[in-house]
Amino acid sequence: MEKSIFYHAGCPVCVSAEQDIVRLIGESNVEVVHLGEDKNRINDAENSGVKSVPALVTPNGNVLHINFGASLSDVKG
Amino acid sequence: MEKSIFYHAGCPVCVSAEQDIVRLIGESNVEVVHLGEDKNRINDAENSGVKSVPALVTPNGNVLHINFGASLSDVKG
Repeated sequence: MEKSIFYHAGCPVCVSAEQDIVRLIGESNVEVVHLGEDKNRINDAENSGVKSVPALVTPNGNVLHINFGASLSDVKG
Repeated sequence: MEKSIFYHAGCPVCVSAEQDIVRLIGESNVEVVHLGEDKNRINDAENSGVKSVPALVTPNGNVLHINFGASLSDVKG
């Protein structure tokens, strides 16, 4: 299977979603891109249709925008 | 691995997200619940923290709210 790409920006909520996605899909099936650290990937993300992070771009090119249901402790953290 | 639960309501955007999720996670690892047809599961979904559909509840109890980046043709369809 071609890899999915998980775009995030390092926020606690993103990291939590990332851990879930990696666990579900399998680490070898997803490339994780931190757009805050890797700013030259922002164009790629935009061209793929990513509107917000965290987002998962699937191997067939669909974009799943993920809003993790943050707990208050996440928001405060 | 315990199963994830994917809640949706049968809209075209949900179905598209469902196909992506099932493909990524593997059909045997996810239970798909159509809340429009299976209204007595709405309580379960709410109790799990689901605020909108489509949403994926992971085996460790986190809720990933998924907003599929709908194309205009999806919205019109």
